[in-house]
Amino acid sequence: MIISKQYISPVAKELLRTNPLANEAYRQIIQAIELNATELSGKFVINSSEKNANGVVPVKENIYARLEDEYGWFREKPLPYLVEAKKGGPIDVYNEFEQFKVGLEFETGNISSAHRAMNKLCVGIKHDDIDMGVLILPIHTLSYYLTDRVSNYEELEPYFVLLDEYPFIVIGFDADEYNPQAPILPKGKDGMSQRAIHKWKGY
Amino acid sequence: MIISKQYISPVAKELLRTNPLANEAYRQIIQAIELNATELSGKFVINSSEKNANGVVPVKENIYARLEDEYGWFREKPLPYLVEAKKGGPIDVYNEFEQFKVGLEFETGNISSAHRAMNKLCVGIKHDDIDMGVLILPIHTLSYYLTDRVSNYEELEPYFVLLDEYPFIVIGFDADEYNPQAPILPKGKDGMSQRAIHKWKGY
Repeated sequence: MIISKQYISPVAKELLRTNPLANEAYRQIIQAIELNATELSGKFVINSSEKNANGVVPVKENIYARLEDEYGWFREKPLPYLVEAKKGGPIDVYNEFEQFKVGLEFETGNISSAHRAMNKLCVGIKHDDIDMGVLILPIHTLSYYLTDRVSNYEELEPYFVLLDEYPFIVIGFDADEYNPQAPILPKGKDGMSQRAIHKWKGY
Repeated sequence: MIISKQYISPVAKELLRTNPLANEAYRQIIQAIELNATELSGKFVINSSEKNANGVVPVKENIYARLEDEYGWFREKPLPYLVEAKKGGPIDVYNEFEQFKVGLEFETGNISSAHRAMNKLCVGIKHDDIDMGVLILPIHTLSYYLTDRVSNYEELEPYFVLLDEYPFIVIGFDADEYNPQAPILPKGKDGMSQRAIHKWKGY
C-alpha cells in the first residue's frame, strides 16, 4: 500500500527527530502498511468494481499480523487507567521499545468510532500509559470501495488540531492500484485465517 | 430534573468566576435542565418499568425548546471552521452573550457519538468559533431507562481529562423520581409537537 497522507504533530516530529526508539516504532508501522499486498508482486490491488465492494477487516488484519509476526507487537493491550475506571476497551496494537511505549489503532468503524479511538490514545498519553499514539485510516478514495461508512482520513482531518499538543501520528493509506477485476476482499471474518493473535495479557 | 454530576474544567471554573456572560449562559443551561418536567408539579418522573422503556428525544427537545423560547438560543449553528473543511454537522444549540459564544450538545447517540460531539465543541473552541463548550448527558442510572445504548455521563468520564485545558463543562442529569407507573416517553419523533425550531441560519 501507499502512505498517501500524514499528520505528524509537532511533538511527534521532535520525537522522530531525537528519539531512535520512536523512530524505530514509526519505521515498523510504515513498513507494515507499505508491505501489505494482495499480489505476489508486492502490490495491493483493490477491487474497484463498485462502492463498498470490499471488506476492511482483511486490510487491518494483514497489517496487524505483520506487526506481530515480524516485530513482536502485542494485540489488545488494556490501558491501566481505563481498566481502573472500568471503561473502554484495550488498545488494538501495542509495543514497548525499551521504555518507549507505542499504541496503534486502525479504526474500521464509522467516523464516531474514529473519534473514540483517537481519544482513547490521547487518554493513554495523558496518563503516561503510552508515549506515542498512532492512528491509521484509509484515505477517502480507498474507503469508497471498502465496507460501508468506514471512517477515512479526510473525514477526521478537521479534528487533528486537537492533537497538536500530543505525541500523535495519523496515517492515511491508499491502495497501489484500483482494478475492477481484482479479487474482492471478504467482509466480516470470512476468509480470515484462524491464526491465534498475540495478546498482551498472554505476555 | 436534577443536576447529578458535573465536570467543570479549570479554565471554565475561572470563566464562571470572572465572566458574568459565561455565568449567565451557564445559569440558563442549568435552569433549562432543572425545569424540565413531566408533571405540573415541576417534577421529572421517569417510567422505570423496564430497561430502555423511554425515548431520549423528548428529554432533549424539552431542554432545547426552553433554551430557545425562554432565552433565545439558536439551533443548528454551523461552525465556520467545519463548514470551510466541508466536514461535520452544526452545533446543536448555540447562543451569543454579547461577544461571548457558547455551544451546547446533548448527545443522544451511543458512546462513540458522544466522543464526536465532545471533539466538535473542542475544535470550535480551538478555532475561536465558541468561547465555552457544554455537553449534557443522562447519568448511568437514568440512561438505563432511556433508548438503548444512549451514552451516559459515567461512560465518558474517563475522557474528561482531555478537556482540562478547554473552557468546557459536562453536566450529568437525573430524573427527580423513578416510577414504574409513570407515563412512558415516546421513542423517535412520535409524540413530539410540530413546533418549528429556531435555526441559526434563519437569524
